[in-house]
Amino acid sequence: MNFIEKLSARAEAVNSWLCIGLDPVLDKLPSFLLTEQQPLFVFSKEIIRATQDLANAYKINLAFFEYAGIKGWRALAEILKEIPSGAIIIADGKRGDIGNSSKYYAKSLFEEWGFDAQTVNPYLGMDAIQPFIDHPEKGVFVLCLTSNPGATDFQRQFVGAEPLFCRVARKVVEANTNSNCGLVIGATQAEDFPALRKLAPSLPFLIPGIGAQGGDLETSILHGTDRHGNLALINSSRSIIFASGNKDFAERARDAALSLRDQINELRKKKTG
Amino acid sequence: MNFIEKLSARAEAVNSWLCIGLDPVLDKLPSFLLTEQQPLFVFSKEIIRATQDLANAYKINLAFFEYAGIKGWRALAEILKEIPSGAIIIADGKRGDIGNSSKYYAKSLFEEWGFDAQTVNPYLGMDAIQPFIDHPEKGVFVLCLTSNPGATDFQRQFVGAEPLFCRVARKVVEANTNSNCGLVIGATQAEDFPALRKLAPSLPFLIPGIGAQGGDLETSILHGTDRHGNLALINSSRSIIFASGNKDFAERARDAALSLRDQINELRKKKTG
Repeated sequence: MNFIEKLSARAEAVNSWLCIGLDPVLDKLPSFLLTEQQPLFVFSKEIIRATQDLANAYKINLAFFEYAGIKGWRALAEILKEIPSGAIIIADGKRGDIGNSSKYYAKSLFEEWGFDAQTVNPYLGMDAIQPFIDHPEKGVFVLCLTSNPGATDFQRQFVGAEPLFCRVARKVVEANTNSNCGLVIGATQAEDFPALRKLAPSLPFLIPGIGAQGGDLETSILHGTDRHGNLALINSSRSIIFASGNKDFAERARDAALSLRDQINELRKKKTG
Repeated sequence: MNFIEKLSARAEAVNSWLCIGLDPVLDKLPSFLLTEQQPLFVFSKEIIRATQDLANAYKINLAFFEYAGIKGWRALAEILKEIPSGAIIIADGKRGDIGNSSKYYAKSLFEEWGFDAQTVNPYLGMDAIQPFIDHPEKGVFVLCLTSNPGATDFQRQFVGAEPLFCRVARKVVEANTNSNCGLVIGATQAEDFPALRKLAPSLPFLIPGIGAQGGDLETSILHGTDRHGNLALINSSRSIIFASGNKDFAERARDAALSLRDQINELRKKKTG
């Protein structure tokens, strides 16, 4: 099964296009967890257990694990065992390198760590992305248009008749011969969703920036999904995982995840009638 | 001391602008080392001991350590202890993310892991790079023009009157208020060195692509150094560390490093008369 089929099968199985971002930054964890031996693990495990029937995917931000040193990588290995099979596990590492290094980054997160997908940076060019694409059963979400103000510095600059991010999208569509490529597009960039959907009608979009960053959910769904109301993974991190800083943090995370999943599904219905 | 001063002080102390790339890909290590408990560590330690008076800097490619899982990160921690103080240690991780994630990537490699510098990807924009720059004593080498053929896909595309990589260089020069920014420019792109030196007269260039990738050393030095023949770190990986696959691998690495350091210095003399 190629990655896009796998992602769609999961969406159907749990009726969800919700992606939960595991960004367990230590200084935002519920304070009572900080006395634990492995606070990153305990926190993430509880969040996963409370939300596993609601999440299509979990996106794990490698920054916070790398920051915790070897302990962090050990916590990550334990967390990955907690995610039920079927759920899509995305490594958000924004990797990108050339030649052999690129091959090893792909093998590392896909094989050694067992992730189903990862985020990849396009700056180095398509030959740098190809080693990731060469794993057909694994997903490659290429950064296209990010949610931060700095997206104007380079991504929105015009190259010929189109902005750079559209050129990236076109190149990724061309490279998608294994049906395993997707694009990362920030929800704060909603005005560009129609153009991007036109360029890439059948690629999954990974859409962060809902919630804390102020991205618009309605536009993201109405214009970010494909014509069947599918293939838009809406990522929410902080507004789910830090919904409460108290003992009830996992329950409140479940409430927030349930509510967002349902909002997404209502908007999908609105779109497809 | 800001990073550029630190780098220059090291260059003067060892009379060297040579950067040795530690890319210890397992299947290229001398085969007799593969029976060791920690082959990555033993190999790298021997290379470091044999070259430490010749290298300005060591560039460590994180791909190969990440690929080896927790064992790899453990080997990395041990290797870092082997590098003598004074030598510049560059994490080649090509990181790049936004907001808090970016802050944590910077803190991770600079503080938790203790690197002196790291490579950073500019695609996400200057606000994504700023958290790295905010560590004045640490170096931030921003990818500008890479040595692979795919550099034409995006980096060489024109945005307005200049190619994207020149815009990146200009933005990094503007952002260099802490005197700690540099640019990564592949030695295979030698025809662009004069223009880039003009744009960024006082930034250090990190120049990979000599040797195995076929980059031209003479042009890299004559046009890649500043007007005093400084600030061009010439990186060589495979042609030094894999100079021999036998028991004498460390000695042969020393020979190759010595020869390259001397060639660099002769060309610097040729330039400055």
